[in-house]
Amino acid sequence: MRYVVIMAGGSGTRLWPLSRRGTPKQLLKLIGGTSLLRLAFERATRVVPAERVLVVTGAPYLDAVREDLPEVAPQNLLGEPVGRDSLNAVAWPAAVLARRDPDAVIAQLTADQLIEPVDAFVAALEEAFAVAESDDRALVTLGVVPTSPHTGYGYLHRGEPLAGFPSACTVREFREKPDADTAGAYLASGEYWWNAGMFVWRASTFLDQLAALEPATHAAVSELAAEPDRLEEIFPTLRKTSVDFGIMEPVSRGAATGRVVAVALPIDWRDVGGFASLAEVLTADADGNVVDGLTALTDARDNLVINTVDAHVVAVSGTTGMVVVHTPDATLVTTLAGAESVKSVVAAVADAAGPDFT
Amino acid sequence: MRYVVIMAGGSGTRLWPLSRRGTPKQLLKLIGGTSLLRLAFERATRVVPAERVLVVTGAPYLDAVREDLPEVAPQNLLGEPVGRDSLNAVAWPAAVLARRDPDAVIAQLTADQLIEPVDAFVAALEEAFAVAESDDRALVTLGVVPTSPHTGYGYLHRGEPLAGFPSACTVREFREKPDADTAGAYLASGEYWWNAGMFVWRASTFLDQLAALEPATHAAVSELAAEPDRLEEIFPTLRKTSVDFGIMEPVSRGAATGRVVAVALPIDWRDVGGFASLAEVLTADADGNVVDGLTALTDARDNLVINTVDAHVVAVSGTTGMVVVHTPDATLVTTLAGAESVKSVVAAVADAAGPDFT
Repeated sequence: MRYVVIMAGGSGTRLWPLSRRGTPKQLLKLIGGTSLLRLAFERATRVVPAERVLVVTGAPYLDAVREDLPEVAPQNLLGEPVGRDSLNAVAWPAAVLARRDPDAVIAQLTADQLIEPVDAFVAALEEAFAVAESDDRALVTLGVVPTSPHTGYGYLHRGEPLAGFPSACTVREFREKPDADTAGAYLASGEYWWNAGMFVWRASTFLDQLAALEPATHAAVSELAAEPDRLEEIFPTLRKTSVDFGIMEPVSRGAATGRVVAVALPIDWRDVGGFASLAEVLTADADGNVVDGLTALTDARDNLVINTVDAHVVAVSGTTGMVVVHTPDATLVTTLAGAESVKSVVAAVADAAGPDFT
Repeated sequence: MRYVVIMAGGSGTRLWPLSRRGTPKQLLKLIGGTSLLRLAFERATRVVPAERVLVVTGAPYLDAVREDLPEVAPQNLLGEPVGRDSLNAVAWPAAVLARRDPDAVIAQLTADQLIEPVDAFVAALEEAFAVAESDDRALVTLGVVPTSPHTGYGYLHRGEPLAGFPSACTVREFREKPDADTAGAYLASGEYWWNAGMFVWRASTFLDQLAALEPATHAAVSELAAEPDRLEEIFPTLRKTSVDFGIMEPVSRGAATGRVVAVALPIDWRDVGGFASLAEVLTADADGNVVDGLTALTDARDNLVINTVDAHVVAVSGTTGMVVVHTPDATLVTTLAGAESVKSVVAAVADAAGPDFT
C-alpha cells in the first residue's frame, strides 16, 4: 500500500523571532493561520488516507505536531531524539513501514516549501507511485521543473524517458548547487531539474540499497523498527549523512542494484526560508504591505508587519520595505533587503539577551 | 518665604507609546531612568527646601507623582480633577500658599524641558526671587535667551533694565509665535527672549492682579483654598484660560496695578516633545544609536531604540534613522524624520486597536 512520510525536522532561525531553536519553520502558522506542515499533510491526504500519513520530526516538537495534525495516529509520529540528517529521517520510517507492510510504497516528502498548484503536485506524486510500483529497482526522485537559474538548489541531469509514463526519465547524475553561469546553462538546456529532496520508493527497494551502501545504518534502523523502546539508545548511534550523499548519488553512479528515476514536478516551488520570501507568498494590501495581527500602518508601503501577540498593537509609520515582527518575548525590526541575513541578528540577540531569546 | 510650584499637567501622545493618555510626559523616566518631573524637583531644591516644593498635576497622576517624588508632602500635591489650563494651575497654588504664608513668594515652574546648565537656571531663579521680593508690583517672567530663530515659541520684547539686577528688565509686550522672518529679526535684534511660561511673584501680588482681571476665578480659588474638600465641586467651574492670556498680557498692557518684569534665563532649553528631540538629548553610542532597555543592534546607525519591557528583546538590524519604541502593550516603528507627527499614528492605533492603546 501507499504511504506518505512528511519530514518536519530541523529548526531554524532564518525567520527569527517567529522560528526559534524550539520551533521548526514547518510548524509556524505562517500562511493564513495554517502551517507548512498542515499544508503538506493536506496535499498528502489527496493521495493516501490520513491513517497512512507519517510525520518524522524532532522529539521536542511531537506535542506541537500532534496539536497541528490531530488526524495523525500516535504510531505514525516518529520523534527523533537527536538530529541525524536526512538519511535517517528516511531510513527509520522505511524500516518501520516495511515491518508493518512488506509491500509498502513510500512517498518521502518535505514540508519546507509552498507548492502551487496542488493538483500538479498530486498528479506527479501519482506518477511517481506508479513508477515505483512498476519497477522494483526504482528510487524515484521528484524533480522540480526550473523556473529560474537558481543557484541555491542542487540539480539533477535527466537521461532517457521511461516508456509508459508522462514525465519519468532516468537520472544521469546529481549536481551540486551551481554558480550563476552554470545555472543559466542548465536552465537553457532543459535537461536539468531542481533536486526537490522528495522521493518515492518501495520500502524493500530502499532498504536493499541501504543494506548495500550503509549496512550499519540498515542494521540499526531494522533493530529500531523491531524494538521501538530502544529509540534513545539506537538513534544517536546512526551515522549522520544525507540521503542524497548516502544513497541517491551512489545509486545513480551504479554503486548498488537500484536505479534512480526522476518524475517531473511542474509546480511553483517557493521556499519560505526568510522574510523576503515570506512576504512574496503572502497577500499584500493596496499599499504593498503584508500585515498580520493587531497593527496600525500609516504612510507605509511595501512593509511586512507580523504581530503574534493579541493584546499588543504594532504601529508602523512612514516606512518603506521594512520587516517588523513582534512576538511575546522578541521583536525584530529590519529591512526586507537585509532580512535574509537574520543569522547575525540572532547571534547578537543571544549575546545581548541570552540564548533563551533565540 | 520662597516656594516652588512645579506644573506637571497635561498628557500627550507625541511620545506615544511611551506617553499615553494616562501618562504625562513629565512622569516618563526618559533621561537615564529619571523623569523630567524629578529633574525639575531637583532643580527646585537647589533654591528652596523640599518641604516648600509643590506639584500641580492631574488627579489621575497623583499616585505616579507620589512614587516619583516621595519627598513631596501630601499637602503639597495638588491634583486637578479636570484640566482647566495654565491660569488655574497657577491661581490655585497661589491661593493655597497665600493662606499658609501671607508673605509667600512663588516660582511657578514647568517640567517640560531639559535645562542645562542647572547652575545658570538656579542663578536666574535667585535673581527672579530677589526682584519679586524687592518689588511688590512685579510679576516676573523668565525669558530664555534665544539660541535660534525658533518659530515654535512665544517671545517677549524686553524694555528698560531694572537698576540693581544683572539681567532684569521691563517687558514691552508679549508676542505670539512668529513666522520665520520675524523670528530671524527677533534673534538679530537681541531684544527678544523666548517666553518660557515660568514665573516668579509674591502670592499676594499675583492674587491682586487676578482679582482685578479674573474676579470669578479669584473668588473660586480663594474658596477652594479655604475649603479644600470642595475641590470636585469648585474646580470644574473655573474658566479655562492661560496665564499669559488671562494675566501676563493684560498686565503688560497696563490693565492692572502690577507690572511685568523679565529675568534672563541663559540656558540650553530643550523641549523633548517628540522622539527626534528626545534622541538629541540622550547619549548616542559610537554608531549614533540611542538605545535603552534590552536591545540588540546589528549594522544599524543613528536609530532611537527604546524598550521598556524587561523580559523582551528588541532586535534592530540594517536600519538608519529609525525610531523603535516597545512597551508592554504597544510598539512603534517609524522614522526619526517622521517621528514628530505621531498624532496620525495614534489616531490610526485608536481606530485599529481601540482607545485603550493610546
